[in-house]
Order: sequence, then structure tokens, then C-alpha cells
Amino acid sequence: MTAEADLENFIRGALAEQGFMRLVGAELDEVAPGRCVLSVGFRPELTQQNGFFHGGVVGFLFDNATAAAAGTMLRDFRKEGVLTAEYKLNILSPALGERLLCRAEVVKPGRMLTVVEGKVHSLDGRGGEKLVAVGLATLAVVTLDR
Amino acid sequence: MTAEADLENFIRGALAEQGFMRLVGAELDEVAPGRCVLSVGFRPELTQQNGFFHGGVVGFLFDNATAAAAGTMLRDFRKEGVLTAEYKLNILSPALGERLLCRAEVVKPGRMLTVVEGKVHSLDGRGGEKLVAVGLATLAVVTLDR
Amino acid sequence: MTAEADLENFIRGALAEQGFMRLVGAELDEVAPGRCVLSVGFRPELTQQNGFFHGGVVGFLFDNATAAAAGTMLRDFRKEGVLTAEYKLNILSPALGERLLCRAEVVKPGRMLTVVEGKVHSLDGRGGEKLVAVGLATLAVVTLDR
Amino acid sequence: MTAEADLENFIRGALAEQGFMRLVGAELDEVAPGRCVLSVGFRPELTQQNGFFHGGVVGFLFDNATAAAAGTMLRDFRKEGVLTAEYKLNILSPALGERLLCRAEVVKPGRMLTVVEGKVHSLDGRGGEKLVAVGLATLAVVTLDR
Repeated sequence: MTAEADLENFIRGALAEQGFMRLVGAELDEVAPGRCVLSVGFRPELTQQNGFFHGGVVGFLFDNATAAAAGTMLRDFRKEGVLTAEYKLNILSPALGERLLCRAEVVKPGRMLTVVEGKVHSLDGRGGEKLVAVGLATLAVVTLDR
Repeated sequence: MTAEADLENFIRGALAEQGFMRLVGAELDEVAPGRCVLSVGFRPELTQQNGFFHGGVVGFLFDNATAAAAGTMLRDFRKEGVLTAEYKLNILSPALGERLLCRAEVVKPGRMLTVVEGKVHSLDGRGGEKLVAVGLATLAVVTLDR
Repeated sequence: MTAEADLENFIRGALAEQGFMRLVGAELDEVAPGRCVLSVGFRPELTQQNGFFHGGVVGFLFDNATAAAAGTMLRDFRKEGVLTAEYKLNILSPALGERLLCRAEVVKPGRMLTVVEGKVHSLDGRGGEKLVAVGLATLAVVTLDR
Repeated sequence: MTAEADLENFIRGALAEQGFMRLVGAELDEVAPGRCVLSVGFRPELTQQNGFFHGGVVGFLFDNATAAAAGTMLRDFRKEGVLTAEYKLNILSPALGERLLCRAEVVKPGRMLTVVEGKVHSLDGRGGEKLVAVGLATLAVVTLDR
């Protein structure tokens, strides 16, 4: 197995162990060095009071996708992990559509801290997409005690 | 009905209409002018891969509690609403415990923008609590089109 | 005079009236719809204790460039203005070099709020540049009382 | 010399070596474990185009005070230092007054990261003060190479 396939398996496995990922029903669409894409289809369980995707769903996709993107930069994911230190998210538009998708890209990897940008789009199901949120996350690289 | 009871009913009603609030299983513990407290009990559906509360749950409680606290400052909640413009959240510790609780307090209400601070604590079920996240949210006050 | 030259004159004039812009010695390099570039040359008065550009200089360039970029989106700069509501800045590297430059670009203009991204680079004077900070700013659009 | 006086001397010395601190004319009013207060008097060199304190001055005080507060938490300031990883600042009101003052307090010290809250007030010179900005900063603890 190549290093890249190994990495993808590791990220996929970590996300599969998240109870909240399953509860929300989100999917890993893509993972590659410095990059991760997560998305989730619309359903009434994911809404706020006006029928839009809840801000908590937007934030969850952003949080998880930026952490996974940072995880792809680890020198050895068996010995290190990433923890979200903080993030900031600007909500630009109500999130309405068939699907919500977050693309996260590493801006600056580091030995201690990795900074990741995430953009959340809503998809209308006919190929159109709209930017609904943009943010920056700071992830701490931690040594695993095993 | 007093104005304050009216306000509490309005916030309680708005949260009850959120599909995501029910999916997560969060509860409104307290609402008062300039203040809102939300919490949720631990269950495996709310975890990340190490068994802690998922960061997405921390973010959801923060997002919803800060928005509700800002909503309590509206001059007339029948004609105005609040929309989260942005927020920033620092994660201070892994969120482990029987319950997760967010207290949100308005720092500065405004005609256009209201700024709210939120603090998320984990509760151990024996009266102990630990600060797990702190953040600031900016909410835009919008006129409702009805 | 074209509308674009008019806009450039307005932004240039507003910056020229800032005492702090002159104290720091910053220059407006470029202004265009949705975009602004400011920079400042190195001198000992702009340093922190290790001889790098002070974080306060990085923050000032970012703050001023993002506000000016948002100002270019006003429908009528004689009747409206922009005020920084908040910003978040990630410092990626120590700012060392001959010159510090911030490029700001509007991510989403709005009637009430405009969101701008800013990137600060250090220039080594031989054509090389390094990304030292990246951030997001939220600007409120306000009606001028005159 | 007591450890606390030693710490105060260290912080005072580091700030005295900052060219930008002198250019702005800011003063260290107080430093104690987990806490730092900086301030600066009004003068035309510190203004934006409407005669208020420039946002860059507000940001500089916040940046410097939060870093100094984090510095007070170092186990050994001869072997470690702090670097601002990121900060987020909400501007609540125009900064008008005789003096601008930032109080920074550590929210959570850490071996890798320290989180600090800062509040900036404007003082009217007659004992009145107004909150003009509030923010959170994340500082990385780094080992010094000497």
C-alpha cells in the first residue's frame, strides 16, 4: 500500500470511529496531502428554525474537515495527532440546498501548529454551488502517549 | 404574561423548531435578558474518535447559546431577528464528562451588531465543572420580512 | 474623472488623514474595486524585542488594508462608511525583511457587512516574499451623519 | 530580588527593547502573574481619519498586553518565550478619550499554548472608562535557542 493510500485509510478510519459523524450523516469525499473534503446531504434533522442547515452543521463540517486536513501533514500519524486549538468562522449566507460541503486546505503546516483554511459551500443539486462560510483553524500537533 | 416570560417562550419556541437541536438532544436550561444556557448529556452518538464530546457538539452549543442570548436583546422579536455573522472559539481542554454546558452572556448589544461571549464547561455529574472552551460571537440584527 | 479614479482618490485621501499611517510610515500601493495593498519599509522604530517587525505593525497593515478594501465596495462613499467590527489574524512566521506588505481582497460584500481576507508578506528586497500572516475581517457598513 | 520582581523586570526589559513600543509611546502600567496592563495617551499621531485612536493602536495594545500576560506564565523565561499564534478582536465602540488602556488576563496557561483575554478601554480623564474592544489571543510557548 502506498503512503498516500495509507494516509487516506487512517483519516477514513478515524472519521468512521466518530459517533457524531454518523449521527450527522456526513461523508468523507476526498482526502489528500494538505486537503480534505467532507459533505452531508440535507434532511430535516439538520435544520434550524427556518429550515436552513443549522449553523452547528456548518461548524461541524468546518471543524472536522480542517482537523482532517491538518492530520494529513503529520510526519507519522502513528506517533502524533492533531487537536483543534481554535477556529474562527464567518457565516456569509444562509445554508440552503441539497448538500453542504466543506473544502479544507492547509495554509501553513508546522511542527507545533498547523493553520488551515476552510470554505463551506451549499450545492443546489444541479451543479450550482454557493459559498456560505469561510474560516481559519489552528491545530496543535501533539505526541501520542501509547 | 410578562415581557420576560414572553421572551423565554419565544426563545424556547425557536429552539424547539430546530431539527438539529432535537437530533443532538440539547436542552435550554436558562434564558434571561442578555443570557442563555444550553446543555446536553453525554452519549456515544456525540463523540469523536477518542470518546470525548466531538468538537462539533462544543461548537453547536456555543453557536446556539450565543445566538439565543443575542436574541434576548431584540427590541421586538416579532419584527427583528439575529443571524450569526461570525464566531471564534478556543478549545482549552478535551470535553469529557457526563454533560456539556454553554453559558452565553451579551458583552455589547447593538442596533446592528451584538457581541456575545460564550463559555463551555464539562460537568462530571458530582458538582465539578471544567472550562473546555471560550469564544466570542458577532450577531447581526436583521429586520424580518413577513 | 472616472468613478474608479474617484474611488482611489477617496481612499488615498482618507488614509492621508490618518496620523497613525504617517507615524508608521505606511504607503498605499494599490487600490481597486474589492482590493487594497498597503506596505511599509523596515526601520528600527517598527520592531519588537528581537528585531523583527512588531506584531502591532502586522496587525495595523492588516486592519487598514482590509478596511480600505471594504471601503471600495460602498455604493456611495459620500453617504456611507465602513467600520471594522472584528478581525482574526493568524501569525505564521516572524516578520523579517526589508518591507512588509498586506494584500486585502473582499470575500463577500454586503449591504450590512463585508468580509475581507488579508494576507501579509515580508519582502526580502530581491524579489522574494514570504507569507507571514493571514486573517479575516468583518466590516460594518454605516450611514454617515453629515 | 523576589521571583515576582524578577518577572516584572524581565517583562519591563523586553517591552523597553521594542522600537514600536517607544514609537507609539505606550507604557507598562502593571504586570503580575497571569496579568498585564498597558496604556497610551492620546495624541494626533495615533489617530485614524476621524480623530479617534486608530484601530491599529487598539490592536497593538491588545497584541502586546496579551503576549506579556502569557509571558508571566512561563516556567523559566530564560529558557522559554511566547509567540502570538493568532488573535481575534471585536471592536465595540470608536476609541475616543484621553487614554487607551488594555487589561490582559490569562484564561488558560499551558505547556504548548496559553490563551489570554484582553479588554481595551478608553479613559475620559475624569475617572470614566468605556469598553472599546474585547478579544482572545493564543500564544505558543517556544524553547529559546541560545
